[in-house]
Amino acid sequence: MFQSFDDISNPACGAPHAALLRSELQRRGLDGFLIPRADAHQGEYVPPCDCRLQWLTGFTGSAGMAAVLADEAAVFVDGRYTIQVRDQVDMAIFPAQHLIEEPVSKWLAARLIPGQKLGIDAMLHTVNDVKKLRAVCEAAGAELVLLEDNPIDAVWADRPDAPLGAVRLHGVEKAGRSAEDKLAEIQKSIADKKADLAVLTQPDSIAWLLNIRGSDVSHTPLPLSFATVPAEGKPTLFIDGRKLSNSVRDALSAITDIAEPMGLMPHLASLGSDGKRVMIDPALAGEAIAGTVAAAGGVLVEAQDPVLLPKAVKNPVEIEGARAAHVRDGVAVVRFLAWFDQVAPAGNLDEIGAAEKLEQFRRETGLLKEISFDTIAGAGPNGAICHYRVSRTSNRTIPAGKPFLIDSGAQYEDGTTDITRTLAVGPMSDEMKRHYTLVLKGHIAISTARFPEGTTGAQLDTLARIDLWKAGLDFDHGTGHGIGSYLSVHEGPQRIAKTGSTPLKPGMILSNEPGYYPAGEYGIRLENLELVAEPRDIPGGERPMMGFETITLAPFDRRLIDVRLLSNAERTWLDGYHIRVRQTLLPHLDDAVCKWLEEATEPL
Amino acid sequence: MFQSFDDISNPACGAPHAALLRSELQRRGLDGFLIPRADAHQGEYVPPCDCRLQWLTGFTGSAGMAAVLADEAAVFVDGRYTIQVRDQVDMAIFPAQHLIEEPVSKWLAARLIPGQKLGIDAMLHTVNDVKKLRAVCEAAGAELVLLEDNPIDAVWADRPDAPLGAVRLHGVEKAGRSAEDKLAEIQKSIADKKADLAVLTQPDSIAWLLNIRGSDVSHTPLPLSFATVPAEGKPTLFIDGRKLSNSVRDALSAITDIAEPMGLMPHLASLGSDGKRVMIDPALAGEAIAGTVAAAGGVLVEAQDPVLLPKAVKNPVEIEGARAAHVRDGVAVVRFLAWFDQVAPAGNLDEIGAAEKLEQFRRETGLLKEISFDTIAGAGPNGAICHYRVSRTSNRTIPAGKPFLIDSGAQYEDGTTDITRTLAVGPMSDEMKRHYTLVLKGHIAISTARFPEGTTGAQLDTLARIDLWKAGLDFDHGTGHGIGSYLSVHEGPQRIAKTGSTPLKPGMILSNEPGYYPAGEYGIRLENLELVAEPRDIPGGERPMMGFETITLAPFDRRLIDVRLLSNAERTWLDGYHIRVRQTLLPHLDDAVCKWLEEATEPL
Repeated sequence: MFQSFDDISNPACGAPHAALLRSELQRRGLDGFLIPRADAHQGEYVPPCDCRLQWLTGFTGSAGMAAVLADEAAVFVDGRYTIQVRDQVDMAIFPAQHLIEEPVSKWLAARLIPGQKLGIDAMLHTVNDVKKLRAVCEAAGAELVLLEDNPIDAVWADRPDAPLGAVRLHGVEKAGRSAEDKLAEIQKSIADKKADLAVLTQPDSIAWLLNIRGSDVSHTPLPLSFATVPAEGKPTLFIDGRKLSNSVRDALSAITDIAEPMGLMPHLASLGSDGKRVMIDPALAGEAIAGTVAAAGGVLVEAQDPVLLPKAVKNPVEIEGARAAHVRDGVAVVRFLAWFDQVAPAGNLDEIGAAEKLEQFRRETGLLKEISFDTIAGAGPNGAICHYRVSRTSNRTIPAGKPFLIDSGAQYEDGTTDITRTLAVGPMSDEMKRHYTLVLKGHIAISTARFPEGTTGAQLDTLARIDLWKAGLDFDHGTGHGIGSYLSVHEGPQRIAKTGSTPLKPGMILSNEPGYYPAGEYGIRLENLELVAEPRDIPGGERPMMGFETITLAPFDRRLIDVRLLSNAERTWLDGYHIRVRQTLLPHLDDAVCKWLEEATEPL
Repeated sequence: MFQSFDDISNPACGAPHAALLRSELQRRGLDGFLIPRADAHQGEYVPPCDCRLQWLTGFTGSAGMAAVLADEAAVFVDGRYTIQVRDQVDMAIFPAQHLIEEPVSKWLAARLIPGQKLGIDAMLHTVNDVKKLRAVCEAAGAELVLLEDNPIDAVWADRPDAPLGAVRLHGVEKAGRSAEDKLAEIQKSIADKKADLAVLTQPDSIAWLLNIRGSDVSHTPLPLSFATVPAEGKPTLFIDGRKLSNSVRDALSAITDIAEPMGLMPHLASLGSDGKRVMIDPALAGEAIAGTVAAAGGVLVEAQDPVLLPKAVKNPVEIEGARAAHVRDGVAVVRFLAWFDQVAPAGNLDEIGAAEKLEQFRRETGLLKEISFDTIAGAGPNGAICHYRVSRTSNRTIPAGKPFLIDSGAQYEDGTTDITRTLAVGPMSDEMKRHYTLVLKGHIAISTARFPEGTTGAQLDTLARIDLWKAGLDFDHGTGHGIGSYLSVHEGPQRIAKTGSTPLKPGMILSNEPGYYPAGEYGIRLENLELVAEPRDIPGGERPMMGFETITLAPFDRRLIDVRLLSNAERTWLDGYHIRVRQTLLPHLDDAVCKWLEEATEPL
């Protein structure tokens, strides 16, 4: 199994670990310390050795931070995790704060007093974050102390070693472009910014650029590494040499120099002392990176990671790969759905059983490399926890009479998938159907949207919400995220959310996943992946419009739809989508599942 | 008449005036000069003495800029004015550029060469704009020269004098709050920013704060002035003393010191040399203001004009005033619409005739103080010019078979109005009805939206466009702007547009005016004003939602609606709105107009 159901969270760690950290801070003469969830790469998954927030507090969510002062501490999480954090963290030691409504900066501003020293690990906080933290400390008369090591590491007794996942080449037949070709494009954009070189801190940027994959963290096939890319000449990949076989090293050497990670800082210092213009992304690069360059006399050029946009716009080979991966994944998901309908009503199935079976069907495709994240299988109230991870303790039997939410994805070499369905188990109430249908209307509104070039995800987000808003309902997460090509299941810069300021481009892939979560009751989320399509003329129109091609293939649960709440256009879309799902997947299914799919995709 | 139909635009001015300016620039050793449309107050209307862009190029739009180099020049306008600019400006001298797609900065970057000197009038460009201009010049190796006077004024032979409109007190019975009360609120927000004082450069901020009105510019009852507001103590109003009668001066003296405008810069310099912390809005204040403070040693505190938000959120008296003004204005508009239906089909009515008659009906309310902008009366192709101003030359007879667009507003002491209707004249084609109905659907989508606290206008804008987008159509202006209370017809910071980043608050008033403009054919725009309503619980919902109360009262033209394109909910909204219009206005209309209104508001 790629998914573990062990109880990795232990709220009891909070008191002793906070005490250990506080004694270490006192030893160093620090009055406080911040513990972000992030590692030096700011990615979604961090290796066990860098799960410092979890070690300290027990919190396992994908974003968050803790602050520890001498007499007070807190943990900060966003709306996705407000329920989860209460189960995982000792609230007596680390009261939970809403990351957005009561940000760390505000919390600190109300507590720091003149002369105090607040420490941070300068590798783990981005340049932008440190700017804000500096301002907070300055306003309070306190001092922000940038540390070169992490006090937690000094008191973490059984800290795991750094991972050493083997690096594999991701051939051009899957990547669609050679590393040389990508490098030329990136070097041009570095030169356009009048920089001498760029520092890449995101491993998925490096993996895309050099056409490599790895296995240093869960669920995302990337090798943890840094790289510097000069405007002209060979880049340098900073990576633990033990991850490279001789053949991979030989292949990589043709396009990049290779160095140990400990060589990064001296390299940046020498670039700085040569007066080089060094491009960093202040939203992604650790302050230690920028600080080392600047302290040595280099010039910082702040700009978005030059790989982000080219990586986000999938090339034709990646697009074909994504379509193929979604047919394959659709077969596995439909087999799961048919099986679920057979088994769940008896009342003996639990969340873990569902997640295991879904992974099994995906394994039976023969091409599953990983699941793209821990399957979220939420029965009843667990479904209302947006990013619920089922464990042996939290595991619930799936009850009849409540919708069951299952959000999962796969990593295939030709594409990454991510799909959420909400399923009827036994009779569903009118209220459940109303909620499901309101979410479905939001989903369809995104799927059927047309929009001119230059439109951002922020402009589309409201389409997914307006029917919920009119009913006095909402959901506390974005409507959609970008997705990588056999890379991160969440990738930027594109997103469908209030904060999605990147114009959507043909070839980008985004999720479309509105939801509704009555706390303590159940969760509803409906998610397909959407490929941004080229602008096309519309009969009777005068401007070509972009739109989405839905690439995820699996039916929505007709038993949860209140047809009266759908417009004719919405019904037409759903029926048409179901016909496509049926026609595409039937040839790959056995008779029993075919029969199930035919019924599940009957017109409304 | 408040509106003049004279031909104020003369493209022939371009060649001689550009020559005059160039010789003056040469005399001063400048290689180029920028001529913004704005005056020192960055308002929508500028007095004739400050219409430098119009003097130079002929362009009369409400936003734009010209750039003049030794051998080349250009005029930059936004999407609203791309048609108009070609009629008003000599394209051989000032080729038109799109202000957004080919911004001035880009144009300059491609032309400036090292060592060149680009001049600007430092009072007319905001602090933010100058930051960008400095970066452009620096990148090109050129120098940005901040001038204390304007080279145009030196060569503008018959430049008008500055206006001397009399200042009137706007009593608390209309303003809803005393100036003392407002001042206390603003002073608190200045203190909260840890500033010693704020400089107000927007005359409508000052008019709101001090409860005064004036008549220095067209259509907006404000006195041009500056003010400084200390965190404690009396503000100083910088205004030409000739605008103040003795009684007004006496009343004002109780709350503010009064000084001549020429005293502003020395005052700022002395504040600077005292080391004061001076709050300015970098998006509104001229660079000369900030530069004077900083050069003298003061500390700049950059923050939004502290009056903007309090002014935007109307108080109960202003809200009641707005409702009353809209009943009154609705009566005038409905009388006009009934008259129009009687007269227009004969084919003898022209745009000026329509605008004159509408103003006459508004005058007959007995309370009209001004029209809130030059009525846009666009017949046929003129309707496709979004901000068309009819002149004796452009005036067209209103043809049968084309929709007629009329956008107008009034200034009453209790409220400012702004309404657009598009009217059938003779038989309308199916295509025209389709276009009208698509725009109407966008209008209704805004009117019926519900949204949680914190929602911005940017989040709502797409609702007005999505049905147009799906038809391959769009419009090149925002969906809605804020509106003042017997003040500017366009006021910020709230807006319904891609750029509308201010959360909407109960009490704000915004326009809702989607459109569609097939060039060379006709224009369609449908505009009501909407009051943001308090959050309210929704049956079956769990979060209170805000929404809009439509305060404009006039029927939409049923003859242009293709009912088949409307959903049941849209039809219900329109019929309900028409019932409200009918019930509210009937008591104020004579029998013939009552009969017309009853027919015009029949259910669809």
